[in-house]
Amino acid sequence: MTQTYRLHYAPDNASLIIRLALEELGVPYDTALVDRAARAQRSPDYLRLNPMGLIPVLETPDGPIFETGAILLWLADRHGALGPGPQAPGRGAALKWLFFVSNTLHPALRMTFYPDAYTDGDADEQARLRAHAQARIKGHLDKLDVAAGDHPDLFDGDRPGIIALYLGPILRWMALYPEDHTAWFDLYDWPRLRALALGLERRASTAAAIRAEGLGPHPFSDPQPADPPEGSAT
Amino acid sequence: MTQTYRLHYAPDNASLIIRLALEELGVPYDTALVDRAARAQRSPDYLRLNPMGLIPVLETPDGPIFETGAILLWLADRHGALGPGPQAPGRGAALKWLFFVSNTLHPALRMTFYPDAYTDGDADEQARLRAHAQARIKGHLDKLDVAAGDHPDLFDGDRPGIIALYLGPILRWMALYPEDHTAWFDLYDWPRLRALALGLERRASTAAAIRAEGLGPHPFSDPQPADPPEGSAT
Repeated sequence: MTQTYRLHYAPDNASLIIRLALEELGVPYDTALVDRAARAQRSPDYLRLNPMGLIPVLETPDGPIFETGAILLWLADRHGALGPGPQAPGRGAALKWLFFVSNTLHPALRMTFYPDAYTDGDADEQARLRAHAQARIKGHLDKLDVAAGDHPDLFDGDRPGIIALYLGPILRWMALYPEDHTAWFDLYDWPRLRALALGLERRASTAAAIRAEGLGPHPFSDPQPADPPEGSAT
Repeated sequence: MTQTYRLHYAPDNASLIIRLALEELGVPYDTALVDRAARAQRSPDYLRLNPMGLIPVLETPDGPIFETGAILLWLADRHGALGPGPQAPGRGAALKWLFFVSNTLHPALRMTFYPDAYTDGDADEQARLRAHAQARIKGHLDKLDVAAGDHPDLFDGDRPGIIALYLGPILRWMALYPEDHTAWFDLYDWPRLRALALGLERRASTAAAIRAEGLGPHPFSDPQPADPPEGSAT
């Protein structure tokens, strides 16, 4: 049977955010593993789905959608769930924090994972780039912890919308990656974000993601490296 | 009289994108100049509107909204204009390219303007960071020019939606800033994006922005430095 949606994913990749959203919505979907070891995300077939060669892509009846934030928002609006709809009074707050996570927090985190994608400089230069990004991220998390106080509905892990679903995995990755460069991060510094992580871990959507991607028992509040049943997380 | 919207702006800043959208919508708004020379964007009053201290902010009946992409999308949906609505078949394409511009193209451009905001390294290191970002941007523009062929409605300067309104000013800034570091950019390399710029320049919204911010006669296709009636562009 052909499902409505097909998620192109790699374990513990940004696709995890979309998997959580699909599970929360309870809509049928299947998955296609992108074999990063074989650089399948750079294959002609994959580049037809996303010319940037990045994961995830969600195939939909309206065509393939890429960009994590775009897929999240599209799913939420299409299914009338996961946060304030387009005419709701809280829509502006949801959008501003979604875009902030998408264009400021997430890119800074990516810079800590792949500093070589931003400079041709040597290892020392890359280390400085990573350290600067991590310092900025601390400031971003401070702002988000305040925002979670201002907008508890948007940051509620027990009734997660698009912001909480985006942030849970990001909190995970900051604690885990890059290996040997995570000492700066302590989730206890941001108590509202820690509450979000703990709330998310009580959801059936998280249990499903744990099974599918081998994420271990506390994937957001106290994560361990993934041990996925198929593919590789790194 | 109190208007529905108040745009906090600086001439030739990201707020220009929102001004164009408000003009296209034909909705009443007033503006508040953010005096960057006095670092007014870091004042307590401004930080209450946007804790990141960035321009623009749009004050709305639902509270202040920041993040250019968020404001654009919020305005489009609230007024049912500027592109495919939440249930339209073209919505996924609009969202994926909006997020791409917001979280990949725009941040890379920002890195060319303010490399010192991304590293504590010396001037040579900052120059390498800028050059790398400019090389990446070329690739992004290649992708966008192809996308403009795939989705002509989303990239139509003569009937601009959120993508075209976002891209016009970005094309301007790549040609102008940072002074003495723009030789890499030639709009003729991306003919569909050049058509977008020329189309936008035929709009009354552009004429209004030219008057308000002193942008000169061809602000997107052949821009000159701004000479604004109030405030400073740099």
